[in-house]
Amino acid sequence: MVEATEKLTKKSEDPSRWYLDLIRMAKLADYGPVRGTFAIRPYGFAIWERIQCDLDGRFKATGHQNAYFPLLIPESYLKKEAEHVEGFDPELAWVTIGGREELEEPLAIRPTSESIICDFYRNWVQSYRDLPILINQWCNVLRWEKVTRPFLRTAEFLWQEGHTVHATAEEAREEALKMLNIYRDCFYEAMALPVLTGIKSPSERFAGAVETYTCEGLMGDGRALQAATSHDLGQNFARAFDITFLDERQERVYPYQTSWGLSTRTIGGLILVHGDDRGLKIPPKLAPVEAVIVPIWRGKNKAEVRKEAEALYSELKGSGFRVEVDLDEEHSPGWKFNEHELRGVPVRVELGPKDIEKGQVVLVRRDTGEKEFVGRRGMPESLRALLAEIQENMLHQATEFRNANTRRAETYQKFKEIIEEKRGFVIIPWDGTEETEARIKEETKATIRFLPFEREEGKDPVSGRMGRTAVFARAY
Amino acid sequence: MVEATEKLTKKSEDPSRWYLDLIRMAKLADYGPVRGTFAIRPYGFAIWERIQCDLDGRFKATGHQNAYFPLLIPESYLKKEAEHVEGFDPELAWVTIGGREELEEPLAIRPTSESIICDFYRNWVQSYRDLPILINQWCNVLRWEKVTRPFLRTAEFLWQEGHTVHATAEEAREEALKMLNIYRDCFYEAMALPVLTGIKSPSERFAGAVETYTCEGLMGDGRALQAATSHDLGQNFARAFDITFLDERQERVYPYQTSWGLSTRTIGGLILVHGDDRGLKIPPKLAPVEAVIVPIWRGKNKAEVRKEAEALYSELKGSGFRVEVDLDEEHSPGWKFNEHELRGVPVRVELGPKDIEKGQVVLVRRDTGEKEFVGRRGMPESLRALLAEIQENMLHQATEFRNANTRRAETYQKFKEIIEEKRGFVIIPWDGTEETEARIKEETKATIRFLPFEREEGKDPVSGRMGRTAVFARAY
Repeated sequence: MVEATEKLTKKSEDPSRWYLDLIRMAKLADYGPVRGTFAIRPYGFAIWERIQCDLDGRFKATGHQNAYFPLLIPESYLKKEAEHVEGFDPELAWVTIGGREELEEPLAIRPTSESIICDFYRNWVQSYRDLPILINQWCNVLRWEKVTRPFLRTAEFLWQEGHTVHATAEEAREEALKMLNIYRDCFYEAMALPVLTGIKSPSERFAGAVETYTCEGLMGDGRALQAATSHDLGQNFARAFDITFLDERQERVYPYQTSWGLSTRTIGGLILVHGDDRGLKIPPKLAPVEAVIVPIWRGKNKAEVRKEAEALYSELKGSGFRVEVDLDEEHSPGWKFNEHELRGVPVRVELGPKDIEKGQVVLVRRDTGEKEFVGRRGMPESLRALLAEIQENMLHQATEFRNANTRRAETYQKFKEIIEEKRGFVIIPWDGTEETEARIKEETKATIRFLPFEREEGKDPVSGRMGRTAVFARAY
Repeated sequence: MVEATEKLTKKSEDPSRWYLDLIRMAKLADYGPVRGTFAIRPYGFAIWERIQCDLDGRFKATGHQNAYFPLLIPESYLKKEAEHVEGFDPELAWVTIGGREELEEPLAIRPTSESIICDFYRNWVQSYRDLPILINQWCNVLRWEKVTRPFLRTAEFLWQEGHTVHATAEEAREEALKMLNIYRDCFYEAMALPVLTGIKSPSERFAGAVETYTCEGLMGDGRALQAATSHDLGQNFARAFDITFLDERQERVYPYQTSWGLSTRTIGGLILVHGDDRGLKIPPKLAPVEAVIVPIWRGKNKAEVRKEAEALYSELKGSGFRVEVDLDEEHSPGWKFNEHELRGVPVRVELGPKDIEKGQVVLVRRDTGEKEFVGRRGMPESLRALLAEIQENMLHQATEFRNANTRRAETYQKFKEIIEEKRGFVIIPWDGTEETEARIKEETKATIRFLPFEREEGKDPVSGRMGRTAVFARAY
């Protein structure tokens, strides 16, 4: 339990401290002994389990299967794809001793698994009949990050990584886009995160990819968060790892691959988008606890209220809700209200002697704070409807915020002002050069989050050259 | 697809080769580049997912929650509990370089997580109100094994490890036994593995535990497999890691802990117990595919049979079965029968033009090979009943085998004969000394698998001293 005396830092006053305090007070995660490592505590992990369940269902419904590949990757494997090793080398952790002996070849803990999975695929892919291969794995990965923050950037994190192999370039591209859309659907429908999707600029592309597609979310402080990516790998890895197959004309050719991932980072996104000064707001579909019943009793009617609260709890549980009843006797109802608001429970159900008399309960929404009296009898239906409404409203609110914070800038001066004063997504044409991209980053700390799928031409306000519209933001 | 020409080695002729061939041919796992590491392929992983689902439900129903703890453990943490580090030190893999720099302290990849979890628990446990802590994690662990075999003994493996904290010794003991029984129930009910349960001798106890309880299975070749263990840790780890709490009398005391685990090793157990010369036999509850429909067509009636097979597939899928229809046109029905028997699919559904005419289908059981004609109309019910019968029969067969291979030996000579000629579980009184245990192991390669919970006294046939009945076997 959070001590009654501790108060959450205000989000508006100190968003960084608010974020860390909230994670600690809501018991989402805790710091490990190795820098950048964290334990995900049961309440935080339950959110992750619900994200996993939602996504895994979407993967399986589209023909993907889960598998598991080794944690340790020999150095020589990582070196096979030149861009790939260059991208990940600075972040690797190396195992050099095993079973009390120095190893002949250092082994990296996977920062991502393309290089080891390709080694298996070389054997598994022989004929066009073996294709497509549609495999995903849920696992831990490790990247030796310099600056870390729980969920958002951690040395070790949990994720899923899909790795597919296809006979044609077109199929691989379609797969990469299909998975991007599955992520987007999950963000909208389960997480109430209205991400925008698009194409990464070459400098932000995944190391070794032909094209990287991204889901970008806008956080409450106006900074962007890369929430999931899907990569069209072309034949780069197939060539580097010598994966070939006999096509229908009996010719040996290289296949095309994709990879795509979403990590525990999204929990950070959930906190930053939905949280407020009172604490977390968890979208009902991901909430470990959808509703908490808080009985309001005084000495003489305690037994009766308690009995009614327990009966309601059993009924709701029986109806399939994830529900808790807070029968703690040491704390006041007010203290409990704060506590469950901090934890982001979508609905509080209050039940006192008067409510029992009137055959009603009080439903209090976490998203708006609104109170509503509903009949005790129609309770499961009322709660179900309210949870759906909250889910919808949270997406609506976040979408309004995102729209209000997506701006076009006519001049570079204006661009700089918006980034400095308001943040958010800022749209300008970009001439497509690394120089301009680097200059903007240096001068404003804003990076290209993505190029919209719908191409739009215009004059780059920085260089004056013609270019394609890009969406910039300062990012996590 | 397995090549038509390859034939599975006979289990009776060369059980070791049979085991490895079967894993390869049924695409359960494949060797990784680092010795002792493996990929679990989709068909093997789907079995693991079903085991996870069953166990996780049992854990949650008894109040346990999932969490996630860091992969990397600083050397100094592992050294805190003396027996623990002594037990695991020879098997550790060490990270010594991170982010291109030599680390100040080497970090072990977790071989098990007691030492890192205790570090978190030191902060999370402050008052008796924080207890019990009932946490489980699903993760990968690594032990640098010298001799490895897919699933049975691998350097990296997947498992769950539960870690609980309790106020009293009695509660911790009860928890350790409760989890042992949960494992046993899962083995019996889901895996059709009739394990025996008991107490480990001190020499086979988990490093750092007060008592280790075990589930021991008997494999088809008469060797035992330790299938899951549950440890009463007493206060050993609490003292080593300085975990204390204020009890109800406001005194600071050490809590009591447990830990318990089950791994992908159980997939090896499933193969060894149920598999036969034709291939795998997967218990219906764990089978990725419960039934496969094989249409039997000739040229002229192909379209009709195909249509009927697809309709049956849709109907069964709609009724919630995990079902496949094999519409491949390159292979004969006979080839397909072999293939699906190799994969251990519990029921084959044959459907030919005559069956369609008669309004029937043919169900062929993988466990007994028996054929049965059933009406096409009552199909979902017939299949459901047959799957339940197969599940029950597989447990029955394995139990008969176990019973037939559990023997008492009156003399040490007789004990040696049984171990040498018949293997299986052999029961004799043991005087409780490490000397006798070591002598038996040296002379017969048999180890004490467990001491039955029901104590039975007798004269140790090796030393002639009085002792307690113990169950021996050669083990994996």
